[in-house]
Amino acid sequence: MSTLPRAVRIVEVGPRDGLQNESKIIPTEKKAEFISLLALSGLKDIEIASFVHPKWVPQLADADALISHLRPYPDVRYSALVPNMKGLDRAIASGLKRIAVFTAASETFNRKNINMGVAESIAVFKPVVERAAKENISVRGYVSTCFVCPYEGPIAKERVADVTKALFDMGVDEVSIGDTIGAATPKDVESTGGHLISQNPIDKLAMHFHDTYGMAVANVYQSLQMGFTIFDSSAGGLGGCPYAPGASGNIATEDLLYLLDRLGIQTGVSLAAVRRASRFIATQLGRALPSRVLQTSIGEVVH
Amino acid sequence: MSTLPRAVRIVEVGPRDGLQNESKIIPTEKKAEFISLLALSGLKDIEIASFVHPKWVPQLADADALISHLRPYPDVRYSALVPNMKGLDRAIASGLKRIAVFTAASETFNRKNINMGVAESIAVFKPVVERAAKENISVRGYVSTCFVCPYEGPIAKERVADVTKALFDMGVDEVSIGDTIGAATPKDVESTGGHLISQNPIDKLAMHFHDTYGMAVANVYQSLQMGFTIFDSSAGGLGGCPYAPGASGNIATEDLLYLLDRLGIQTGVSLAAVRRASRFIATQLGRALPSRVLQTSIGEVVH
Repeated sequence: MSTLPRAVRIVEVGPRDGLQNESKIIPTEKKAEFISLLALSGLKDIEIASFVHPKWVPQLADADALISHLRPYPDVRYSALVPNMKGLDRAIASGLKRIAVFTAASETFNRKNINMGVAESIAVFKPVVERAAKENISVRGYVSTCFVCPYEGPIAKERVADVTKALFDMGVDEVSIGDTIGAATPKDVESTGGHLISQNPIDKLAMHFHDTYGMAVANVYQSLQMGFTIFDSSAGGLGGCPYAPGASGNIATEDLLYLLDRLGIQTGVSLAAVRRASRFIATQLGRALPSRVLQTSIGEVVH
Repeated sequence: MSTLPRAVRIVEVGPRDGLQNESKIIPTEKKAEFISLLALSGLKDIEIASFVHPKWVPQLADADALISHLRPYPDVRYSALVPNMKGLDRAIASGLKRIAVFTAASETFNRKNINMGVAESIAVFKPVVERAAKENISVRGYVSTCFVCPYEGPIAKERVADVTKALFDMGVDEVSIGDTIGAATPKDVESTGGHLISQNPIDKLAMHFHDTYGMAVANVYQSLQMGFTIFDSSAGGLGGCPYAPGASGNIATEDLLYLLDRLGIQTGVSLAAVRRASRFIATQLGRALPSRVLQTSIGEVVH
């Protein structure tokens, strides 16, 4: 038997990565209610908004107003994406104490996604991270397309390692390794993940899987066997994949929790409470969410 | 890196395990068309019907008529469930050359499912298997609830091994190890699967996962790492779980194929062709099927 971690930290990205890929725009006060339900489930890291230009992501255009609506909860850390210095100004004004910057391992993807090359985006983020530090704001880094790029195909693990190093060198305290189009298999995770942990402290690396092809839970299990202890997920599996219309979004928090609960790995999060949050937002969106666990109508998970 | 098998055999159970759990009854000629599409995809083992009493499973009441409608394809082996000697009479009359008998690792489940204890069901099947052999009909065995029972909870691996042995002793040529309610995790597969392969030839054991809680692909990957080479699946993830209303059915053939294709494991099955079969039956059922890969609208899988 392989040794699995005793505890795992979940970073809930549903209100940001999830809702940004939903076609329907949710009213600010309903978003705040959704986020409260998530906080009450025991989730301690919740990414709630993005300070990109409202034109880019109209679903998240209300970031500033939303943050003023949020209730604080002890030990709950809210965060938002920041694309540049102007976004940081908004983050500082909002009072948030955690932000995230984002680039990609694929040059082509980064140009199509944020209209900058990877090196250029790193250069843009450097002063953002420096100024955030002065404001006592901690910074997470995202690397998209760490396994497969919809334009370039398979991505070399060395490339992912280079971008990860550039983010850590700039001062982020955690890097999220993204399988943006959900195309990775556990074998890819073994290879790229293994390379990353040979160069970086594993407790600073988060694994960020999408369930486009149904591989996400398998990829988490592979990661657990390698000792990874931070996972991104979205309630109900909110969201989608702009490169695969109709597809599922992030791994569902419920499906992740089912696996962790059954493996006896501690999270501090109540699966039943996350289901309540997901049912709330599913009603707001007017659609069924893709989480397998959420779709079962039984109230209690079999243990 | 763990060593994975070079090739895997898929047993398509959609027309039986899938359709038996769909609320809508599909006309015989449409079932035959669905099965032809599956056969044309390269699937070589297709379970197409059940000879249980029509009152038990009205969705499959047309077994005899369906078999007379089926086109033969070179190398394609059709099979059907047989619950007793009367069912065997129907199978012989139909001309089928492969049948399957079924029991469970959980005493309570077996009583609720087929109204017999496990030992009693083994006793009922013994003369069925003997007579099938004389008729040159090969027999597969199913064991349900090998990991978790909806009534008894976790099932001891020794119990699964005992029932598996009883089936092999009676003359079945393959035993399918079922996670009937989809509650197993890869750790359970490692434990129970490891126990089974310490006592039986691994190339006679099929792994039969349901995706109720989204664990099926992870369980397949765990099985592959242990050397298992036979997997049951259903096109589109057809079916459901009578013990978890609203839940997904068997692991989807498409999701299984995506994993195997990306790992470079040979199957002889075309994912695009299975998608065509699934779209056909989804239209007949009037509902979207749960396969993640089927739900993506992109035509080609990213490699």
